[in-house]
Amino acid sequence: MQGLFFEDLSVGQSAETTKVVTANDVEAFAAVSGDTNPVHLDEAYARTTTFQTRIAHGMLSGAYISAVIGTKLPGPGAIYLSQSMRFRRPVKLGDPVVTRVTVQALDDKRGHATLATVCQVDGKTVVDGEAVIMVPRKGA
Amino acid sequence: MQGLFFEDLSVGQSAETTKVVTANDVEAFAAVSGDTNPVHLDEAYARTTTFQTRIAHGMLSGAYISAVIGTKLPGPGAIYLSQSMRFRRPVKLGDPVVTRVTVQALDDKRGHATLATVCQVDGKTVVDGEAVIMVPRKGA
Repeated sequence: MQGLFFEDLSVGQSAETTKVVTANDVEAFAAVSGDTNPVHLDEAYARTTTFQTRIAHGMLSGAYISAVIGTKLPGPGAIYLSQSMRFRRPVKLGDPVVTRVTVQALDDKRGHATLATVCQVDGKTVVDGEAVIMVPRKGA
Repeated sequence: MQGLFFEDLSVGQSAETTKVVTANDVEAFAAVSGDTNPVHLDEAYARTTTFQTRIAHGMLSGAYISAVIGTKLPGPGAIYLSQSMRFRRPVKLGDPVVTRVTVQALDDKRGHATLATVCQVDGKTVVDGEAVIMVPRKGA
């Protein structure tokens, strides 16, 4: 169940997922987080906001980023050190969120990888930011 | 369902929640995010890692931060602009996570609030970082 090792990584390498956000996903995220803000759960309320319809929690896109890192690039064995996120556009129910993680820099001395982390819907960036990960070495 | 307005905020104001992380929470977070990294789901695998037991997803703490912002400070009506997080220590199953959000700076011109966001277990910081929120004004 070991993911990629530090030696397997190179700048420019990337991995991605696509997830269509459903009402069930938003309700499950509200339940597990406790974030019951009505802009996520109540269509009548959401229609009164600038978004005009229910939107997904920004941190659900964060969860998709974490999923790509935790399962694909670099995958199990890596340790998440930090994440920054800018929430640029809302994600609506039914939107297909493409989450892409790309190796941006490798710190050989410390075994750290810096990843560009981007979520897009229909080619437009909804979230961008950066993750730093400690990646195990072969035979370490 | 309106939360606090920009005029209701002052530097130093804070809000918090306490959530005990259960196996169900971690499994629900894995299901909704797609992050099935075995360090979160497989106790036998987790025992072989540096953590020695299953740990919660770092982004679950991020979800708790989002919940305090989305329901308490400032609550509904605010717009999440950005979040940074440093993952400092693991969160284990059964850990009570205290998530505290504190107003750090107010940008009156733009209506932005900068919040310090910290999650602690037994008085030790597990995640820290910063959020920037756009907060509606009264009568705007």
